[in-house]
Amino acid sequence: MELMLAIGLLGLALVLGAFVAKIAEKFSIPDIPLLLLLGLLVGPILGIISSEEAGHIFEYVGPIGLIFILLGGSFTMRVSLLRKVLPTIIRLDIITLIISLIVSGIIFNLVLGLPPTNPAGFLFGAVTCATDPATLIPVFSKVKIDPKLAIILEAESIFNDPLGIVATSVVLGTLGLSHAKNPIIDFFVLSGGAIIAGIALAKIYEKIITHAKFHEYVAPLVIGGGMLLLYLGDYLLPNLTGYGFSGYMAIAIMALYLGDALFKRTENEEEYKYIVNFCDNLSLLARVLIFVFLGACISLDMLIKYFVPSLIIALGSIFLARPIGVFLGLIKSGHSIKELIYFALEGPRGVVPAALGVSTSILIKKNADKLPGFVTKYISANDLAGMILVATFMTILLSVILEASWAGILAKKLFGEYKGKSVH
Amino acid sequence: MELMLAIGLLGLALVLGAFVAKIAEKFSIPDIPLLLLLGLLVGPILGIISSEEAGHIFEYVGPIGLIFILLGGSFTMRVSLLRKVLPTIIRLDIITLIISLIVSGIIFNLVLGLPPTNPAGFLFGAVTCATDPATLIPVFSKVKIDPKLAIILEAESIFNDPLGIVATSVVLGTLGLSHAKNPIIDFFVLSGGAIIAGIALAKIYEKIITHAKFHEYVAPLVIGGGMLLLYLGDYLLPNLTGYGFSGYMAIAIMALYLGDALFKRTENEEEYKYIVNFCDNLSLLARVLIFVFLGACISLDMLIKYFVPSLIIALGSIFLARPIGVFLGLIKSGHSIKELIYFALEGPRGVVPAALGVSTSILIKKNADKLPGFVTKYISANDLAGMILVATFMTILLSVILEASWAGILAKKLFGEYKGKSVH
Repeated sequence: MELMLAIGLLGLALVLGAFVAKIAEKFSIPDIPLLLLLGLLVGPILGIISSEEAGHIFEYVGPIGLIFILLGGSFTMRVSLLRKVLPTIIRLDIITLIISLIVSGIIFNLVLGLPPTNPAGFLFGAVTCATDPATLIPVFSKVKIDPKLAIILEAESIFNDPLGIVATSVVLGTLGLSHAKNPIIDFFVLSGGAIIAGIALAKIYEKIITHAKFHEYVAPLVIGGGMLLLYLGDYLLPNLTGYGFSGYMAIAIMALYLGDALFKRTENEEEYKYIVNFCDNLSLLARVLIFVFLGACISLDMLIKYFVPSLIIALGSIFLARPIGVFLGLIKSGHSIKELIYFALEGPRGVVPAALGVSTSILIKKNADKLPGFVTKYISANDLAGMILVATFMTILLSVILEASWAGILAKKLFGEYKGKSVH
Repeated sequence: MELMLAIGLLGLALVLGAFVAKIAEKFSIPDIPLLLLLGLLVGPILGIISSEEAGHIFEYVGPIGLIFILLGGSFTMRVSLLRKVLPTIIRLDIITLIISLIVSGIIFNLVLGLPPTNPAGFLFGAVTCATDPATLIPVFSKVKIDPKLAIILEAESIFNDPLGIVATSVVLGTLGLSHAKNPIIDFFVLSGGAIIAGIALAKIYEKIITHAKFHEYVAPLVIGGGMLLLYLGDYLLPNLTGYGFSGYMAIAIMALYLGDALFKRTENEEEYKYIVNFCDNLSLLARVLIFVFLGACISLDMLIKYFVPSLIIALGSIFLARPIGVFLGLIKSGHSIKELIYFALEGPRGVVPAALGVSTSILIKKNADKLPGFVTKYISANDLAGMILVATFMTILLSVILEASWAGILAKKLFGEYKGKSVH
C-alpha cells in the first residue's frame, strides 16, 4: 500500500474522528460507539476505505497505538491509591479475567456449534477480556459514587489491558499461531518477566532523570524505552532464546513505577507533565484511529452474515461472562452484594479488545493453513476471523453504550445519593 | 521489514538520541552534528542498523516527520512580525533560494565532472537549499543581536522549508522521476496551489474552532487536516488531473494562518497551546529520528568513496552558493553590507535537506532504469544516489557546526555589542 494513500486515509479518520468525538462530548455520550459507527460509515457503507486498506493500516496503527495508550494510562496511576485496593484488583485482574475469558469462550463455542472447550472460543474470550480505562475515567468524572469503587474499576481496567494482551498471545500459542508450550506457565513467564523488565527500566530511568533534568527530551527517552521493551520481550528474546516477556505489560509496569517516582519529586514536575501531556495527546490520536479502523475493517457481507451470532455472544459476554467472573473472583472478599453487582455491570470493553480483535483476525487469515484440525473441523479460518472481528465489534459497541448509560442510574439505585467527594 | 524490528530500531534511535541531545544541551552545542554522528555510529560503524533497514524506516519517518515539523514551525510564526520584513523574506526565499540552488548545482557538477548545467547537480542544490529554523531559533535565543535580523533569518528558514521541497520535486520532474512539464510553471503551480489550499483550510478551521471549542480534539483535527492536504496535493489531484499542489507547502501555509488566527483570540488560547505543545513534541521525535537515520543510511564504503568530493561540495555550498545567493537576492534592498555578510554566513541546513537527501537517494536507486541518458552518460544511478546522500550529510554537518559556532562571534565583530532586547 502506498504511503501517500495511507496518509490520506489516516488524515480522513483523524479529521472526521475529531468531529465525532466533539459531537459525543457535546451530548455527554461516550465517543467509542460513534467512532465505531464512523468506521462502518467510511468503510463498508460508503466504501471510502476498503476493508483490506483498513486492515493493512491497522497492522501499524494497532501495535504502535497500544504503546502510547498503555504508557499514558499507567503513568498517571498512583501506586499508593493502588495499594489500598490491591487485594480486590489482584482478584479481578487474575481470577475474574480468567473466568470471564473462559465463560465468554464457552458461549462463543456453543453459539457457533463448536465443542464448549475449543480454544477458538477462548481466543475470543481473551481478546475481549480487558475493560477500558478510557471509557471508565470520563464516566466516573460525572457519576457521583464512592471513590473507592471508582478506583477499583479504573485500576482493574488499567492492568487488565496488558493482561488481556498476554492472555491473547497465550491462547494464540495453543492454536500454533505464536510461540507457546504450556498456557499456564506461559502466562506466568510472560507476565512475570514483564514485571521484572518494566521495574528494572523504571528504576534505571528514575536514576537518570532525577540525576540530570531531561526537559523535553524525556519524551523520546520514555517512548523509545517503551518501544525497546516491546522489541526485546516480544521479538528479540523469543527469537534468540525461545522465551520472552510481554512487552506491552512491561511498558505498563515501567510507566506505573516511573510515573509514581517522578510524581513524588516536585523537582521533576516538568518532566512528569511533559510525558503525561504527550502520551495523552498520542493516546487520543491512537484511540480515534483504532476505533475508526476497527469499524472500517468490517465488510458489509461479514456484518450481515455474522450479525445474529455476534449479538448473542456480545450479550452473553456482558450479562453472563463478566458477572460470573466478578462473583466468583470476589467471593468472600468483604465486598457487599450491591458492590459486586455494580462491578459486574461496569466492565466496558474498549481500545485493547479493538486492537486485539483486528490483529487476531488478520493473523488467522494470514495463517489459515497453520490453524489446527481441532478448530478447522468445526469452523473455517475465514469464518473464525470474521466472527472474532464482528463479535468483538458488537461486544465493544454494546458494552460501552449500555454500561456508560446506566453507570449513574445503577449507582443511585444500589447505593443511594452519594454525598462525599468524587474521584476526579 | 517486520514491524517489531522497526519498532526496536526506532526505540533505540529515540533513547540514544535523547541522551545525545541532552549532552548537546549541557555543553550548549547544537544537537544536529551529534545526532548525525550517532547515526554513523549505530549504522555503518557498529552495524546495529544496516543501511537498508535505515533506508526502509526512513521511507515512513521522513515524509510523516516533515508534516509535524512544518506544522510546528509555522504555527508559532506571527503574520504581523512577518509583514515588517516581508520584502526581504520574499527575496531570500525566491531569488536567493533559486540562485544558491543553481550555484550549488554547478559546483556539484564541476566536482564530479558533469557539464555545469546538468540537472543532476541542481537536484543536490534543491535538496540542500532550505535553511533550518530548528537550528537558528536556539542560536538566536543565546546570541544577542538586533531582533529584526534574527526574525529575517528565522522567517526565511521557515518558509524555505516547503519551498525546498517544491524545488526538489520540480527538479525530480526534469529527471523524469515525478510528474513535471515545465520547471518554472511547475514551481508556480505547485506553490500557488499550496497557498490557496492552505489558506482555504485555515479559514475553514478558523470558523469551526472559533465556533465550537475543540479542546484536546483540536490535535487530531489539525494533524489530520495536514495529512489530507498532503494526500490531496501530492497524490489524489496529480493522479486524477495531472496537476497538483505542494502538500507540504500547503501544510506550512495552513499552520501559519490558523496559528495566527487562534493566537489573536484569547478564548482559543487553550486550543492554541494544545497544538503548539503537541507539534513541538512530535517535531522533536521526528528530528531525532530523521538525523539519526540519515547517519545510519550511509554505508562505510560510500562514506570513504564519496568523502573528498562531498567535502568540497559542502564547503562550496556554504562559502559560495549561499553567499552569492544572498548578495544577488538582496541587491539594493537597503540592507548594509555587514548585514548581507551575516545573512550569507548564517544559513545552516537541517532537517528538510536531511529528509529530502535520503528520500531522493532512495528514489534514484529504485528508479535507476528511468534516469535519463543525459545523466547516466556521466554518472551511474548508484553513484548519484550515494553522492547526494553523502554530500547532503556533509553539508548539514559542516554548516551547522560552523554557523552555529560563529553566530555570536560574527555578530559581535560585525555589529558590536548589542544592547537592546533580544528576539526570544
